Amino acid sequence: MNPTLEIFSQGEEVVTGQAVDTNAAWLSEQVVALGFTVTRHTAVGDKLDDLIALLREIATRADCCICTGGLGPTSDDLTAEAVAKAFGLPLEVDPVALAQIQHYFSLRNRQMADANRKQALLPKTAERIDNAWGTAPGFSLQVGRCWFAFVPGVPSEMRHLYLETIRPRLSSRFVLRPGKLVTLKTIGIGESAIQQLINTCDIPEDVQLGFRASPDDVQTKLLFSAAYPQTALTALVDTIAAKLGDYVYAIDGLGQASGDLVCTINQLMTEGKHTLAVVETASQGLLAAKCIGLEWLLETHYQQALERLGQKLNVTLDSNDLSASARAVATAIRRDSAADFVLVQLAAGDNKIFHAKDQAILLYNVLLTEDGFYQTTHSVAGPISTKQNQAALLALDLLRRYLQHKEL
Amino acid sequence: MNPTLEIFSQGEEVVTGQAVDTNAAWLSEQVVALGFTVTRHTAVGDKLDDLIALLREIATRADCCICTGGLGPTSDDLTAEAVAKAFGLPLEVDPVALAQIQHYFSLRNRQMADANRKQALLPKTAERIDNAWGTAPGFSLQVGRCWFAFVPGVPSEMRHLYLETIRPRLSSRFVLRPGKLVTLKTIGIGESAIQQLINTCDIPEDVQLGFRASPDDVQTKLLFSAAYPQTALTALVDTIAAKLGDYVYAIDGLGQASGDLVCTINQLMTEGKHTLAVVETASQGLLAAKCIGLEWLLETHYQQALERLGQKLNVTLDSNDLSASARAVATAIRRDSAADFVLVQLAAGDNKIFHAKDQAILLYNVLLTEDGFYQTTHSVAGPISTKQNQAALLALDLLRRYLQHKEL
Repeated sequence: MNPTLEIFSQGEEVVTGQAVDTNAAWLSEQVVALGFTVTRHTAVGDKLDDLIALLREIATRADCCICTGGLGPTSDDLTAEAVAKAFGLPLEVDPVALAQIQHYFSLRNRQMADANRKQALLPKTAERIDNAWGTAPGFSLQVGRCWFAFVPGVPSEMRHLYLETIRPRLSSRFVLRPGKLVTLKTIGIGESAIQQLINTCDIPEDVQLGFRASPDDVQTKLLFSAAYPQTALTALVDTIAAKLGDYVYAIDGLGQASGDLVCTINQLMTEGKHTLAVVETASQGLLAAKCIGLEWLLETHYQQALERLGQKLNVTLDSNDLSASARAVATAIRRDSAADFVLVQLAAGDNKIFHAKDQAILLYNVLLTEDGFYQTTHSVAGPISTKQNQAALLALDLLRRYLQHKEL
Repeated sequence: MNPTLEIFSQGEEVVTGQAVDTNAAWLSEQVVALGFTVTRHTAVGDKLDDLIALLREIATRADCCICTGGLGPTSDDLTAEAVAKAFGLPLEVDPVALAQIQHYFSLRNRQMADANRKQALLPKTAERIDNAWGTAPGFSLQVGRCWFAFVPGVPSEMRHLYLETIRPRLSSRFVLRPGKLVTLKTIGIGESAIQQLINTCDIPEDVQLGFRASPDDVQTKLLFSAAYPQTALTALVDTIAAKLGDYVYAIDGLGQASGDLVCTINQLMTEGKHTLAVVETASQGLLAAKCIGLEWLLETHYQQALERLGQKLNVTLDSNDLSASARAVATAIRRDSAADFVLVQLAAGDNKIFHAKDQAILLYNVLLTEDGFYQTTHSVAGPISTKQNQAALLALDLLRRYLQHKEL
């Protein structure tokens, strides 16, 4: 039997629906992979009595509980106080936490408000969870059968603290028999098309098949029992990967984690010592933004009007032949750039079509490398933010396909 | 006192984290606006005993409960059975529901599976909620103090059923007095600093004060009771807005909703018929990406190396005086651009500092308009994604401050 775990989210913004609780799903996925059975998610607002009642309930019901939110400096952040009252553990100043909070503010040349002092108060017996990503430290403690971990609700901080501190503590405190999760990550193909391709594969009953579609990719997940033989596992993954072909940009769970599409590209660009210049249109900066801090991206350009882009580069561009125009732009940029690759994205469809969620734009991506031109064309519909994101991903995916396969 | 309401989500995909529960947030926002106080969200998996226990808990605790999920045809859809067992209300075939399910299949020329017959079983005393958007009808019933409504978990079906059936039933069954919510949205100031500024304001006890910090802004929320006089409301909001000064970029809840920082800027840029060219460094495309589809953003540039940016623009840039360099870049861009405003962001700190979450970069933002130069300097620390986002927001906020105040 797996140990049971509950997720508890605190915050008025969650119960009033001002914020969608993505923390609960993210944490659940993590701990299920680790070997826990998640039995419940609960969210309550900033009411001390509700918090106290819920903490006491969970302490008698679950083996473990991860709590997010309510650790901020303001008067509606009540988690530490609720823990103190629920379990009779008075709050005490943690001097290390206080020093960390003071350091956080001095680093930013800002005065620490008195309110922030509160964040250094931890319930007696609690073990601090250091937070290098924000002001509020987390903490963990054992009450009755249940081991609790409390972390801030800001998703980026929460994720860091889980991975850096909570996960190691869980692994050392619980006897866990995690299954083996293999995830095939694809771009440019939908969930139902994947399912149709896989249908002919013979998937044994003790392998759990799942799909997860996000704005950035579609993930096909295979969960194997802990006892599943490694050779059979590899064989099944190979068969499915072959069915999905070069839509697969990475496979997680066979060795080291691979990260997202940009991580895959970053590794290949760094290994090959390549550099890149980019012209964006429909993604309007988002392609560059996804590559934040990566040294091989030397320069990017965005021009709203195609005509003006041509004027600046001193080439004539034909809006009726965007394929040829994209090649002309790439050639002109390369002449004047230190980068050895140039990626150009042009889009057909005026601003009205771009804004209309039921109309599609046509995307022309061209990649110029030492091996010549590579190009793809895609039709993308949906709300403008979807079009923008798909435009960034599909242009990057052209680069990924070139780097992985050199043929498209 | 508002009646209390709980949201209850059923489904293994929710507790295992395969699906983010967006239903809970959507429903909460709806019922809060209607005049309920949402006290709890709970999600459990497909386990009959857990469902029964939870239903009994809620029946003693809340005035109302909306439940999503678990009404499908398969063996893991247990909600109706759990309701029957929890409250001793035997399941009975609802002939109208059965006819509707049969009609659903005959309309699509498909054979009704035996499993679907189960979906016509409702607990005794339950009132059917017709579902024209799927096969499973919902139902509602009163148990003790609590009125329950059960609907399918598919978001589109759930939303239809809420709006068409549940909301009217709520309005007729409960005496509701919706409150008035005013939100002050700020950028460039932290939650605790806001609280310190507001501390001296006299906030009456029947006004609920809350804060919400997101990566994009900090929101100060004032929830007034329905009976709160409008003139007193306006006076209090004015007082608080004056304390927060020009950190406030928008106030929601006094008239029409204002949207985020980019919406505020978009309105002012469009009204003033201005256009903009941008040079980004630390935000690396994210500033442009946030302005997706807005016609006043004519062009943007990103160059990794300051030296190369100077070469391209034919100006000499001094990395020891980024303020002057940013002004020189803005002047050069304006000479060659159709835009009347130029926004230039330069950052001090090498790539290593940029990646180090505990080290700060210095941001120099310069805005060149017909009125001359405006500029700000900020120190930003944190993970690289935080630095990127703050860099985009702080540059945009310089533009917002100019547009709203013409002085900085």
